[in-house]
Amino acid sequence: MPILSAAVNASIIDALLRPRSVAVIGASDNPNKVGGRPVHYLSRYGFAGRIYPINPGRDEIQGHRAYPSLDALDTAPDAAVIAVAGDAALEQVRRCAAAGVRAAVVMASGFAETGDAGRRRQDELVAAAHAGGMRIVGPNAQGTANFASGAVLNFSTMFMEVAPADGPIAIVSQSGAASVMPYALLRQAGLGVRYLVATGNDADLDACAMAEAVAADEAVRLVLIYLESLSDPARLAAAAAIARRRGAAVVVLKSGGSKRGAAAAASHTGAMVGNDAAIDAFLARHGIWRAPDIAAFVRAAPLYLQGHDPGLGRTVVISHSGAVGVMAADLAERAGLPLTDLAPATQDALAQVLPDFGTAANPLDMTAALLGQGDLFPRALGALGSDPGANMVMIGIPVAGPGYDVEALAGDAAGFVDAHARPLVVSAPQASVRAAFDRRGVPTYVTEADAIAALHQYAMHRRLMEAAARAEGADARGNALGNVAGHPADAGAGTGLLDEYASLSLLGRYGVPVVPQRLCETPEQAVQAAAALAAGDAPVVVKGCAASVPHKSEHGLVHLRLAGAAQVRAAASACLGKLAELGVDGPRVLVAPMVKGTHEFALGVTVDPQLGPLVMIGDGGTLLELRQDIVTLLAPFDLAAAREACRRLRVAPLFDGYRDMPPLDLDALADAAVALGEFAMACGGTLMSVDINPLMVMPAGQGAMAVDAVVEMR
Amino acid sequence: MPILSAAVNASIIDALLRPRSVAVIGASDNPNKVGGRPVHYLSRYGFAGRIYPINPGRDEIQGHRAYPSLDALDTAPDAAVIAVAGDAALEQVRRCAAAGVRAAVVMASGFAETGDAGRRRQDELVAAAHAGGMRIVGPNAQGTANFASGAVLNFSTMFMEVAPADGPIAIVSQSGAASVMPYALLRQAGLGVRYLVATGNDADLDACAMAEAVAADEAVRLVLIYLESLSDPARLAAAAAIARRRGAAVVVLKSGGSKRGAAAAASHTGAMVGNDAAIDAFLARHGIWRAPDIAAFVRAAPLYLQGHDPGLGRTVVISHSGAVGVMAADLAERAGLPLTDLAPATQDALAQVLPDFGTAANPLDMTAALLGQGDLFPRALGALGSDPGANMVMIGIPVAGPGYDVEALAGDAAGFVDAHARPLVVSAPQASVRAAFDRRGVPTYVTEADAIAALHQYAMHRRLMEAAARAEGADARGNALGNVAGHPADAGAGTGLLDEYASLSLLGRYGVPVVPQRLCETPEQAVQAAAALAAGDAPVVVKGCAASVPHKSEHGLVHLRLAGAAQVRAAASACLGKLAELGVDGPRVLVAPMVKGTHEFALGVTVDPQLGPLVMIGDGGTLLELRQDIVTLLAPFDLAAAREACRRLRVAPLFDGYRDMPPLDLDALADAAVALGEFAMACGGTLMSVDINPLMVMPAGQGAMAVDAVVEMR
Repeated sequence: MPILSAAVNASIIDALLRPRSVAVIGASDNPNKVGGRPVHYLSRYGFAGRIYPINPGRDEIQGHRAYPSLDALDTAPDAAVIAVAGDAALEQVRRCAAAGVRAAVVMASGFAETGDAGRRRQDELVAAAHAGGMRIVGPNAQGTANFASGAVLNFSTMFMEVAPADGPIAIVSQSGAASVMPYALLRQAGLGVRYLVATGNDADLDACAMAEAVAADEAVRLVLIYLESLSDPARLAAAAAIARRRGAAVVVLKSGGSKRGAAAAASHTGAMVGNDAAIDAFLARHGIWRAPDIAAFVRAAPLYLQGHDPGLGRTVVISHSGAVGVMAADLAERAGLPLTDLAPATQDALAQVLPDFGTAANPLDMTAALLGQGDLFPRALGALGSDPGANMVMIGIPVAGPGYDVEALAGDAAGFVDAHARPLVVSAPQASVRAAFDRRGVPTYVTEADAIAALHQYAMHRRLMEAAARAEGADARGNALGNVAGHPADAGAGTGLLDEYASLSLLGRYGVPVVPQRLCETPEQAVQAAAALAAGDAPVVVKGCAASVPHKSEHGLVHLRLAGAAQVRAAASACLGKLAELGVDGPRVLVAPMVKGTHEFALGVTVDPQLGPLVMIGDGGTLLELRQDIVTLLAPFDLAAAREACRRLRVAPLFDGYRDMPPLDLDALADAAVALGEFAMACGGTLMSVDINPLMVMPAGQGAMAVDAVVEMR
Repeated sequence: MPILSAAVNASIIDALLRPRSVAVIGASDNPNKVGGRPVHYLSRYGFAGRIYPINPGRDEIQGHRAYPSLDALDTAPDAAVIAVAGDAALEQVRRCAAAGVRAAVVMASGFAETGDAGRRRQDELVAAAHAGGMRIVGPNAQGTANFASGAVLNFSTMFMEVAPADGPIAIVSQSGAASVMPYALLRQAGLGVRYLVATGNDADLDACAMAEAVAADEAVRLVLIYLESLSDPARLAAAAAIARRRGAAVVVLKSGGSKRGAAAAASHTGAMVGNDAAIDAFLARHGIWRAPDIAAFVRAAPLYLQGHDPGLGRTVVISHSGAVGVMAADLAERAGLPLTDLAPATQDALAQVLPDFGTAANPLDMTAALLGQGDLFPRALGALGSDPGANMVMIGIPVAGPGYDVEALAGDAAGFVDAHARPLVVSAPQASVRAAFDRRGVPTYVTEADAIAALHQYAMHRRLMEAAARAEGADARGNALGNVAGHPADAGAGTGLLDEYASLSLLGRYGVPVVPQRLCETPEQAVQAAAALAAGDAPVVVKGCAASVPHKSEHGLVHLRLAGAAQVRAAASACLGKLAELGVDGPRVLVAPMVKGTHEFALGVTVDPQLGPLVMIGDGGTLLELRQDIVTLLAPFDLAAAREACRRLRVAPLFDGYRDMPPLDLDALADAAVALGEFAMACGGTLMSVDINPLMVMPAGQGAMAVDAVVEMR
């Protein structure tokens, strides 16, 4: 388990992102070569420090005096770009470290991504750097860039094609391509990007460490991070916390969630992609939005940069086309973005503004009358501005041309944002219409779908960030990952697959409600146990109990609804005989009262090697895996989080009473999940998995009870 | 129910879309007024026929001789644009019809969209037109446009802003805005649009009729239709069939599927939006793709126009970036687009082409080596061309610049398409990169997400079109909507809510398997019935049976697992007493054997007023509506369609045997659904709904059995 390490020394980060001097080792006079491009970019994009091209074959490179080697310099440069290949790269790392260079970008490929021999060379590389107190980004890295200082230690051709401009966005990526794709989209949309860091093999300063470094820059409002593996979850959590404390947002695109994507990622970076559900839960807990693709990665950027309060995300859609309103309403409902119910006062105000054939509802159809009356639009916006329930606004302009005063509309929209500081976006298929709004800083989208998606992401993400901030405040533990490295609290619990009796007993000791049960070695013991556990004719169950036979029902080892000594005796006999036949040494049966809950749920634990135990709560029974009505939570979590998660199940209406069923005991289910999470945390690294199915849940106030469970320990 | 009417007279369509002469009534000299714009467009976009501006106040309009009225013309124009408002529009419709004009576009608003009085004025308008044999588009219509003939009878400002060009695409829309939005996106992407028709209130020639008209143009390869209501399903089906027979595609954006969207649509066009699931089923049956939003409406257009065979949709992703491959694989899996498993021969061929550090897998990572070797890319494409399993190709180019020969890559990609006639698309965030491919006719997208979505839609839609063609061939009924207007075959079935006994009996007569049952008026009859229905001690059920008490269990009227005469007698007594207490006249109980299936399914019918009966098949039991594991089919349908639908249920693995459960009787379930559909068809308009829940399904070969049902007739 990763332990939260101290932040990277600030002087190292300064050396990389704000160096006073940079050596480019393997520098080329040709700006189109890997070793020429950093020299070109440093000159072109305003780097004010010293540039030392290192090349034994030349006196001058791109107008700069060149040096044959580091030794020829009178001072150690803060940073170095190592643009030579293979073994030469290793040698240059040694020399840089020896010379007192603080940090280097190593561009050479052919290390861990090629297999075990490469991984050993990579370990050597890191060791050589650390020997001199130097840190590296890479190898196989496209490099770092700070467009505020002009420190572009990066060989991407993208900056030749799409000119940089400083701005409040940082991009950090394990992949070079995935760093410049969002860069290109943001720059083409007119947004400035300060940092672009592509870390490659993550051998030393990884993507998470660099994310933490750029998040610490107070001017950064949005950090975009592309990951194929969660190289350092604790540091990623720290980056998110640093950003969040000043209201800055972190969006992660974690790829490789599909089967084939995971295989491709493994061959791309050699990294395991991790359990996707655990990653979802981890990112959500830390207030990080997970973008599904590159478009979603950048879509809401203008809203983050403006930073207006999205309130509860309740949105008003305005258009001069009824069709745009209908489509936007469909899209909002599909996305889960609530459209505002306009307050009566707002409806009255709008009814005075709008002509007869417009409707003062949401979506708001302003009709073609928008064209005729110059003050119609600002008056309608004014009415919305007075409605505190109208948190966000989407304006749809499907068509414009002669007769449309687009400049005035854009001015009105910008005025609304200035006056009310609320998120407002425009959708318009015509590039010329978008340009008018863009000039006034109003975020624009080509389609309603993109506009609604951006509002939805922004509003939901801000709520996620608030929840993470609350959780951070409440979390006395202080450890971003929780105490996953704790010691096994029940070392005597056993190893491997535990039998049902041992599993239930163990879980019961940690507060998971379990059915009363007795373990019996003879039919007579079973009869006595049944009499003790179930009064009168109350039915009991008898099951064969052996860790080596987990699939009991396949072997006829489950006998339900037994009434009376004769039935119990026969069932116990049959089970003991069957177990003996299966070669079980010292066969035993478990006797328990027959418990029927109002509904069967299931609980489970899997343990992610990086993120710790993940607790699953689901609609239980034998069809659990087909129905896939499940929610997951990273342990530890509290009762409120467990209740909230249960409320996201499709079967959640059962907690309020459904048809002629009484309301179910939500608190008992949530309590059991919390107890299971605490059990998993207490086990530390010794737990493999838990399956509790079914967990019988009773009517409210009557509890819940696990009636079957399998615990697997290491 | 709509009856398939004959296609609109071709001379009417010619008069609208290919007129020899057009009168513009209410013509203005100002091209920026509604009455000026059609004159301007007709002149500007190459209309070769006669233009007759009608305006009593002017002698000349926009360089054309103007006339005071239609009477002043020596001939009746083929078509008229009526660009005057209110009552004047009605008067001009009368005059046009009297003068022998064949068809008119009525632009005036203030008709059915304003309420009942407006609807009556609209009826008058249509009657006035029909009295002279004239047909109209509108009122409240933006109008028609044919950019091949220059016949632009349309007032949208969009054609001032985004210049038209003829091409193989037709757009038909009930909304003006929703007609020009896809137009703008397609034109900005360089695609030509021939027809743009916005029909407004659909009082006469509606969107479906106009879709049929443009689908009949052999040059049209793609018809895009925006609908808020399904104004004429039969004609829409005919339009799709006409297009499909020559391989042309129809994509519909039907909005108003959300609750708030439906309300907005109702106030926008006054139309009811219909049952969304029924519309899905209807469109799918007729091989029409349903786009969820405007972006998806146009996204796959270039692929439709190329028309290459997508085979089974198996796709290869190629990039010089591993990250693009990982993301594309994730996106493909989420969308349900299969990535090809490369044939061993293809892998061998690629292994020879690719350098050591590229991997001959799919996604195919060509690495930066793509830059160094000019023949690497064409050789890799050649290897894929020899693999018949590689149906489609996506090329991801996340970054380019100096050193990238983008022109050569684009040429190679175009060469592959020429040689192999397979769908191939490119994703690239840089506009300059896309331009190189666009110039060679290779479809391009900004993001992998759009590229994958376009391939997915195209491949799935072509399969849907093939299925619709097969169904058309097989359907001896010949009626696009089936025989939904048939006569009730069982007039004696009753009216209103039928009781359980009557419901099961009726369904049983139509071939739905139902539990044997008897209706009893006394406890003694119940005891006799139980003895007759269940041999020995086999358990029976006794339920109170009264149409006026549908919620039996709430009243304690369901008694399960009864064994022996005493239990049956007591249960029947209790039920009869309870029914009497509830005021039921002549109370009766139903006795049936207790049937336990391996799994409980449910079947249901709802009847859409336009589309007829919709049969639902679902994972049954009391949680049916929470679990929402359902599929729907428009009746009538055959066994194969029912089986295929059942296979889409989440619980479908039950049909193959799951865990220790035997395979379930899929055929029996599908048969029951077919029988239910036939019953619903036979009822014609008299059926309201059917609920069968549960339908017990047994192991394969052992059948299925409805044990509870409610039929509601009109």
